[in-house]
Amino acid sequence: MIHHTVQIRVRYAETDKMGYVYYGNYASYLEVARVETFRAIGYSYKTLEDEGTMMPVSEYKIKYLKPAFYDDLLTVHVYIKNKPGVRIVFEYEIYNEQNTLLSVAETVLVFIKSSNGKPCLPPESFQKILNAYFEQQT
Amino acid sequence: MIHHTVQIRVRYAETDKMGYVYYGNYASYLEVARVETFRAIGYSYKTLEDEGTMMPVSEYKIKYLKPAFYDDLLTVHVYIKNKPGVRIVFEYEIYNEQNTLLSVAETVLVFIKSSNGKPCLPPESFQKILNAYFEQQT
Amino acid sequence: MIHHTVQIRVRYAETDKMGYVYYGNYASYLEVARVETFRAIGYSYKTLEDEGTMMPVSEYKIKYLKPAFYDDLLTVHVYIKNKPGVRIVFEYEIYNEQNTLLSVAETVLVFIKSSNGKPCLPPESFQKILNAYFEQQT
Amino acid sequence: MIHHTVQIRVRYAETDKMGYVYYGNYASYLEVARVETFRAIGYSYKTLEDEGTMMPVSEYKIKYLKPAFYDDLLTVHVYIKNKPGVRIVFEYEIYNEQNTLLSVAETVLVFIKSSNGKPCLPPESFQKILNAYFEQQT
Repeated sequence: MIHHTVQIRVRYAETDKMGYVYYGNYASYLEVARVETFRAIGYSYKTLEDEGTMMPVSEYKIKYLKPAFYDDLLTVHVYIKNKPGVRIVFEYEIYNEQNTLLSVAETVLVFIKSSNGKPCLPPESFQKILNAYFEQQT
Repeated sequence: MIHHTVQIRVRYAETDKMGYVYYGNYASYLEVARVETFRAIGYSYKTLEDEGTMMPVSEYKIKYLKPAFYDDLLTVHVYIKNKPGVRIVFEYEIYNEQNTLLSVAETVLVFIKSSNGKPCLPPESFQKILNAYFEQQT
Repeated sequence: MIHHTVQIRVRYAETDKMGYVYYGNYASYLEVARVETFRAIGYSYKTLEDEGTMMPVSEYKIKYLKPAFYDDLLTVHVYIKNKPGVRIVFEYEIYNEQNTLLSVAETVLVFIKSSNGKPCLPPESFQKILNAYFEQQT
Repeated sequence: MIHHTVQIRVRYAETDKMGYVYYGNYASYLEVARVETFRAIGYSYKTLEDEGTMMPVSEYKIKYLKPAFYDDLLTVHVYIKNKPGVRIVFEYEIYNEQNTLLSVAETVLVFIKSSNGKPCLPPESFQKILNAYFEQQT
């Protein structure tokens, strides 16, 4: 399993007139959390794309338990529980500074070869990194 | 049942470097679709809020089947299949101009009294409108 | 001169915790206004890009005189006062439904050939359209 | 004078189909830069608002010299060159990791009393902090 935490400060731009973080803005928090998780295990999402693999999101679900507010310093826990194949599943929990669980979410992303738009396995260099975290599963 | 369709033109701002609509931006399309559905049946979401009821989203799920692109004129189908109580469930289908189904989504929203932050039933004036669509269910 | 007006409904997503439209969100209203102005005179910004010309913004200024609020139906007046060369200047006025002037803005965009990233004149097909509006200037 | 620098990582959500940071998204970078500048000198923008003062932006101008790209780690220099009265002027320079100047910007914000919507001086507690930076001007 991969588990990583990322801290994100809520921007004014991300609030709405209820004073809450707009429900659509959590998606970019999760994106940041994914990318920073990759960086933490030694992989750059930017490099992945530059080398010809894209990772569009194919499914996204989120439960909003409590609102996040302006200037909150959120902690996002990211979990990759199963070794990624063509698809990779991320699970998330978002907490505020009082350690209150605000949201739980899940995204499914697909590895796509940019050249032909077809689903593919993660690049070898990435698989090598992933193997270290999931080898006991084989 | 309530069924309404809304057309939304994809903005440049909403695309990302893959050339797709960023996965987080669908949330605001669905918001527009909800609000215009309310307007179409004679109810203003703005008035609802001004009169002391908020409707935060409590759950959101979406499947991205095909990407939407810049300048696409999307058609969002909105369905409210069950008479809303404290919660209201919206289902959505998003099509492009070639009538290709791009995404399916569902949101659950909760009626909240602004004064005390507690869940509540829809305002009477709104219930009256809703009754016309769901009376056969009683 | 080219003058066109475009109507835009303020989305909940675009408000902030002051209840105003967030100051950064006007940029996408102006983008929509530009693109719809092009469409109105018979030109598609999407086609322009597909045929190898990009139009990044090089300068942007805006004065916020009064706030715009949720669900406001804004009217954006767009003016192109001088015949575009390598650069094109758009001026804007944004009004609400009470015909109150909310903002005035100006953007400068540059025509860029995608293949080499260099500034260029507008495509011939676009110049022909523009000539009809500015011929008296020659 | 107050001078502070803030680092901001470009999110995928903030790019557009040109692969650039969308021109409208710089506004939220500048917002983050302002707020972190306040935090660095010992003042919380959130507290300011909670205590009844808002700071809407009244003017904003920006020149885009070079594009910022996905995953760039930007450095924003913030300057407050004159002691704020009812208005406060921020100047900004945005650099990428190669120390290339990407954008220069300026915003004017106004202190507004939330209770009556009227312009006002900064709260006393904030003025005390500001005095330390601008006392030589008196």
